[in-house]
Amino acid sequence: MNNEATSISSEEKILTGDRATGSLHLGHYVGSLSRRIDLQHQYHQTILIADLQGLTDNGFNPTKVSSNILNLMADYLAVGIDPTKTTICLQSALPALSELTMYYSNLVSVSRLQRNPTVKNEIANKEFGTSIPTGFLTYPISQAADITAFKGTLIPVGDDQLPMIEQTNEIVRKINTIADKKVLVECKPLLSKTPRLPSPDGKNKMSKSMNNCIFLGASEKEITKAVKGMYTDANHLRVDDPGQIEGNIAFTYLDAFHPDADLVQSLKDHYQRGGLGDSKVKAVLNDCLQELLAPIRSQRELFLSDKAELLATLKAGTVSAHEETQQVLLDVKGLFGLNLFEI
Amino acid sequence: MNNEATSISSEEKILTGDRATGSLHLGHYVGSLSRRIDLQHQYHQTILIADLQGLTDNGFNPTKVSSNILNLMADYLAVGIDPTKTTICLQSALPALSELTMYYSNLVSVSRLQRNPTVKNEIANKEFGTSIPTGFLTYPISQAADITAFKGTLIPVGDDQLPMIEQTNEIVRKINTIADKKVLVECKPLLSKTPRLPSPDGKNKMSKSMNNCIFLGASEKEITKAVKGMYTDANHLRVDDPGQIEGNIAFTYLDAFHPDADLVQSLKDHYQRGGLGDSKVKAVLNDCLQELLAPIRSQRELFLSDKAELLATLKAGTVSAHEETQQVLLDVKGLFGLNLFEI
Repeated sequence: MNNEATSISSEEKILTGDRATGSLHLGHYVGSLSRRIDLQHQYHQTILIADLQGLTDNGFNPTKVSSNILNLMADYLAVGIDPTKTTICLQSALPALSELTMYYSNLVSVSRLQRNPTVKNEIANKEFGTSIPTGFLTYPISQAADITAFKGTLIPVGDDQLPMIEQTNEIVRKINTIADKKVLVECKPLLSKTPRLPSPDGKNKMSKSMNNCIFLGASEKEITKAVKGMYTDANHLRVDDPGQIEGNIAFTYLDAFHPDADLVQSLKDHYQRGGLGDSKVKAVLNDCLQELLAPIRSQRELFLSDKAELLATLKAGTVSAHEETQQVLLDVKGLFGLNLFEI
Repeated sequence: MNNEATSISSEEKILTGDRATGSLHLGHYVGSLSRRIDLQHQYHQTILIADLQGLTDNGFNPTKVSSNILNLMADYLAVGIDPTKTTICLQSALPALSELTMYYSNLVSVSRLQRNPTVKNEIANKEFGTSIPTGFLTYPISQAADITAFKGTLIPVGDDQLPMIEQTNEIVRKINTIADKKVLVECKPLLSKTPRLPSPDGKNKMSKSMNNCIFLGASEKEITKAVKGMYTDANHLRVDDPGQIEGNIAFTYLDAFHPDADLVQSLKDHYQRGGLGDSKVKAVLNDCLQELLAPIRSQRELFLSDKAELLATLKAGTVSAHEETQQVLLDVKGLFGLNLFEI
């Protein structure tokens, strides 16, 4: 239980999730996974494996999405997400999410979508050319469907995702105005206090698409290789020279992952004075990452060795999510006068 | 059984339907309903009550849609659509249609939608300003979902709707390319040979939105009033003068609705020679329309007097459509590797 979590009302419902386009990496671990592990003990938390959203820019390459669903499940369970506390569910198996998207689509103008800063940035970064898939432009509507279908009130996001929260709340207000009562609830962002973990080369954020990640399932060799190649201080040519900490990725990782803050501080002091070589710093970091990832890797392999069981766990969460989301769909259909019968 | 119908292979599956935004009128009767009555005897025919599509430009006015669903049902049954031969079903109650729309959305670019001539025209004719609802721009994708979910091969359309068929077949080909096998089948348009019925004032097509319709449920008085006000020949000032048939709406309606073509021809000859007054022509037309619509009106009232029964009929058709469309959804999800489990 951390301070952040205790400051949140236990009435809150947390919705979070990941696009099913790759396995999770250390950036996810510090950014979202460790927080989810905390939050699950106190709140109603749902993790959505967003395979449909993954398809919005992989429509012609669906294997990239389908092949990663169980990888995500294994990642979650291996780091300690507990499926008896957190509902883990699959987006494509929940028809209410698609159906709500249809209703909401009529309440959002095309120009409003085109103004969404997050989507604008993402479109600029991707190589769509003039062929922006419709599903990609419209995914903020689908995301609003996800959030509202779970009555999510608290949504863990980076600040680049704030426009998504805004779009969701606009839809919520429109729905409530049409209904003339509070059918849906607005949500709030839960901003991460952890800065985004840079990639080992220090050039970018760690990103699946840039192939510069240390995955949770990385082998001992892969970890060692990534740490060895890690960017430190380009001007720190001799061991005796004073070295720089700012922008030194090895120290950024030590700050993020080493359990002994005092030891890290003493290493920093030594490095800045001079006399501490990069290889020694990296050796400490390597030990620390190996220690962190070894049990996760073996747990991950264990879970992946029984895919039927993984699938059963995902199905159980999805069945529970189905009940929850169908109820919200019924409420919204009711407001549109379209709950004539159930089939 | 008419000639048109017999020229069609009985393997064909027909999908047709109406936006649930108003009751049906004489224009529908000559344009589509009478054909559906013929086709249902030989083919697998489905009529979709398109309430979701009706919402695409009525998102903030849902009552316009919900209040018309049972009116449509009553219209269908009153004219002789037989629910034991034709599957009549409700779009919003079929989750597969929304789910397929999500998958297809990733295969169609935004610019492709913006180039759709039908949608471009409709957007120009409606008063959206710069606020085009997303659901309206994207409805060709939803229509492709409808057609493919029923494996529709033959789609009755006006020629203004041909771009919708083209869009559907583009999606079908993309899906089949991704699957590398024939998961979906292409469809063909079934163009109407009947010219569109003009409005009684002769100024426009008959259209619910222009409030210039003779509805199937019109009262005796409403029919008489519409016929009396009908445009004939503005230059036919005296009974003895020769009158003109071209553009004379009274004769257009006689051609469309009077069962005795010889009688209509003799009236035309007389009118053109001179000596036949508009009021006499209109009296014949009035008798004919009263005779056509009286049984439809009373059947319609009878059906509407038992809404529970109407709803049960709609539900039965929708249950059958649900089975059919879920199977196609499963096939498409399978191709995307997303048929992991059923819930």
